[in-house]
Amino acid sequence: MNIVVQKYGGTSVGSVERIQNVAKRIIEKKKNNHQIVVVVSAMGKTTDDLVKLAYAINPSPSKREMDRLLSTGEQISISLLSMALQSMGHDAISFTGPQIGIRTSGLHTKSRIEGIDTTKILDSLNEDKIVIIAGFQGVNDNDDVTTLGRGGSDTSAVALACVLDAPCEIYTDVEGIYGVDPRLYPAAKKLDSVSYEEMLEMASLGAGVMHPRAIELGSKYDTNIWVASSEFDVPGTIIKKGEKGMEGQSITGVAIDNDQIMITIRDIPFDMNITSHFFYQFANKSINIDMISQSAPIDGLINISFTAPSSDLNDANKILSAFQEKHPSIGVLINESISKLSVVGIGMRSQSGVAAKFFQLLADNDIQMLMITTSEIRISCIIKSKDKDIAVSATAEAFEL
Amino acid sequence: MNIVVQKYGGTSVGSVERIQNVAKRIIEKKKNNHQIVVVVSAMGKTTDDLVKLAYAINPSPSKREMDRLLSTGEQISISLLSMALQSMGHDAISFTGPQIGIRTSGLHTKSRIEGIDTTKILDSLNEDKIVIIAGFQGVNDNDDVTTLGRGGSDTSAVALACVLDAPCEIYTDVEGIYGVDPRLYPAAKKLDSVSYEEMLEMASLGAGVMHPRAIELGSKYDTNIWVASSEFDVPGTIIKKGEKGMEGQSITGVAIDNDQIMITIRDIPFDMNITSHFFYQFANKSINIDMISQSAPIDGLINISFTAPSSDLNDANKILSAFQEKHPSIGVLINESISKLSVVGIGMRSQSGVAAKFFQLLADNDIQMLMITTSEIRISCIIKSKDKDIAVSATAEAFEL
Repeated sequence: MNIVVQKYGGTSVGSVERIQNVAKRIIEKKKNNHQIVVVVSAMGKTTDDLVKLAYAINPSPSKREMDRLLSTGEQISISLLSMALQSMGHDAISFTGPQIGIRTSGLHTKSRIEGIDTTKILDSLNEDKIVIIAGFQGVNDNDDVTTLGRGGSDTSAVALACVLDAPCEIYTDVEGIYGVDPRLYPAAKKLDSVSYEEMLEMASLGAGVMHPRAIELGSKYDTNIWVASSEFDVPGTIIKKGEKGMEGQSITGVAIDNDQIMITIRDIPFDMNITSHFFYQFANKSINIDMISQSAPIDGLINISFTAPSSDLNDANKILSAFQEKHPSIGVLINESISKLSVVGIGMRSQSGVAAKFFQLLADNDIQMLMITTSEIRISCIIKSKDKDIAVSATAEAFEL
Repeated sequence: MNIVVQKYGGTSVGSVERIQNVAKRIIEKKKNNHQIVVVVSAMGKTTDDLVKLAYAINPSPSKREMDRLLSTGEQISISLLSMALQSMGHDAISFTGPQIGIRTSGLHTKSRIEGIDTTKILDSLNEDKIVIIAGFQGVNDNDDVTTLGRGGSDTSAVALACVLDAPCEIYTDVEGIYGVDPRLYPAAKKLDSVSYEEMLEMASLGAGVMHPRAIELGSKYDTNIWVASSEFDVPGTIIKKGEKGMEGQSITGVAIDNDQIMITIRDIPFDMNITSHFFYQFANKSINIDMISQSAPIDGLINISFTAPSSDLNDANKILSAFQEKHPSIGVLINESISKLSVVGIGMRSQSGVAAKFFQLLADNDIQMLMITTSEIRISCIIKSKDKDIAVSATAEAFEL
C-alpha cells in the first residue's frame, strides 16, 4: 500500500454536491490500492465571511482570537467530508491541526510548521481508514490553535506529504500548470512537469497556482507535488526536482504582470546616502519596490528607474514630490502604462542564447524593452502595456509553450 | 474579588450588535469588582444550520464527526465575544472545551462532564482577563471533541460554577422563572427564588427555562443559579436549595401540557402478563407513556388509562388494533382533547390541604379531572382541553402565583 496525500481547496468542497464529488474521487484512489490522507480547506467563502464578521466587531481583532475564529472553517469541511465518505460505505476519520500535532511557531495568523506527529495518522491508515485533516491550522506551545497564513492549506498538505514520505496531489480549479496563462494565449500547452525552482519563480511572478511556501517545502524534502483539476479527470502537472542538463525546453513559462508602474528619476546626485534615504521612504510606506536599474554616473549624476505596485501610486507621488522639493534639479517621470513580461526556465542554465532569442523576438515585433532584470532562470523586462498581448503570444509561440 | 460564571444563550449572541451588548453587560459586572468567566452558546441558528448540512450529506452521520461539526458554532461565538471585549478596552481570552480540560465520558453527542481543570481559568483571571469558554463541548479520553446534548451550555456553565465555587448567572430571553407561563396568565408573578427540586419538576413538565441536567448539577454542588434576561436589566430568579419548613407559598408553579392523548382500555382480563406485554409494545416503539392509572379488578377485569405524546397517535393506534384483535372483549377509547395540568411546590411537603384546595377550585369551576398522579412535591391531573385556560387562571389566582 502506498500513502498519498490529497488536498482539495475551498471551491472543491464549496457545496454538498461538491463534497460528495470529492468523496467519490477519494474512494476511486483508495480502490487503486492507496492509503489516503486528505487535507481540506474551508468551504467556499467561509473564511472571507468570518473575517468580515470579526472586523465588524473589532477593527483590529486579536490575532489569537482570529486564528480560533478562522480555524472553524476547516473543522466544518473535514467533518462533512468524513460524513460523505462514511455515507458511501468507507471508514473515514477527521482530525484538526492541533489534534494531529501539527506544531507551529511564529506569530498567530502567519505561523510556520515546525513538525508533525504521524502516530495517529499511521494508526488510522493501518485501520483502513481514510484520514481527513484540517488544512491551514496547527497548534503552538501555548496549546492555542494557529493558522498558517496565505497558501496555508497547500503548505499543510505538502508538509504532511514530506513527513509521510508520500507524493502530494493538489486538486484545484485549474487543470494543471501552464507555461502561459490560457486566458492570454488560448493555444497554451499544459506542462507535464515543472521544477521547484521554475515554479517558485513563476509563483512569485503572480502566475503560480500554488503559494511559494508549499513549493519551497516540497523542494526541501524532494516531495513530488501534482497539481490537477478537482472536477475533470485529466492528467495535471507534476512539480519535482529539476533535471540537470536536460535537453528539453529552454523556457517553461511566460508571465505578465499589469499591476505595476514604472518610476524614473533623472539627474540624481550620485551619493549613496541620497539613494538609500530615497528608497527608505518607500519601505516606510510598505511600498514593495520590484525591479530597480541604475545607470552609471555621468558628471556626478545618475538616473534610476524602478517599478512599484499601481495601488501605491498615491503614496509614491507624495514621496516623489517631497524628494523633488529637496532636490529641485531632478526630473521625475511616472509611467503607468507598462507591463512586466517574464520568461522562466531551468533550461536557461544550460542553454545559451535564450536571452538573445527573447530580445530578438521582441525586436521583430517592434516591442521596446524599457527595463531588464534577470536571475539565473528568469528574464524580466518592462514593456509598454499596449504591446503586452502580442508580446505574450510571440513569446509563447517562439518557445513552443 | 469574587468569581462569577455567566452564561449567554444563542439568541443573546445572535448578531454583531447583540454580542456587543453582551460585552457591555460583562464589563459592567467586572467593574463591580468581579472576576468573570463567561460561557456562550453558538450564535442564533448556527447549530440548526450545521445539523441540516450534515443530514444533507449523510442521513445517519457519525456522532464523532457530528460533535466536531457542531462544536464549531461555540468556537465562533467565543472568539467574536473576546474580540468585542478587547475592542472595548478589556483583556479577554477564549478557550474551547477541550482546551480548558472539560473532560467528558459517555457517547458522542450526549457526553457527560467528568471533571474540569481550573488551572488555565484561574491563571487567566489572576492576569485580570475575562475568560470566555465555549459551552456545550468537552473532550473525551481519545482527545476527541464531544458535545453534551440538549441543555449542554447551561450544563457547562453550572459545572464551571461548581468547580470554581462561584454563583452561576444564566442570561436568556425571558426575565426569570414564572410560576405560570405569562402567555397563559398575563398576571403571572416572576418568582424571586425557587428550589432545585421544584425547578426539576417544572423542567420535566415542560415549563422550565433550563434543562434538568444543569439543575441537578447545581443541586449536587449547592451552587446558586440565577436566571435573568440578557436584554433587560431587571432582577431574575434564583434557583437554590429549598428551605425546609418555610412558611411561604405552598405552590410555586403551574404547568400545562397540551401535547398528550389519553388512552383508556376497559375490561382487560386481570393478568400481569397481559398488562406487561401490552406496555412492552409501546416501549418497543419508543412511545413514552407518562401517567398510568389502573382500577381495582372487578369480576376479574380491570380498566387502564394512560397518556402518551400526541405525535405517537399513529403508532399507538396500530398497537391498540392488534391488542383488540387478540382480546376482542376489551373496549378502547382514545381522547385527544385533553391537557395535563400540574401544580408544583416544595411547600406541599409541610402544608397539608394543598390537594384538597386544588381539587376544590377545579370543582368550583366545573372542571372534571379525568386522571390524577402525584409525587411528593407535585400533583398532575388530566382535564378536558376546553377547560385548560380557566383551569390555569383559577389555579394561578388561588395560589397567588
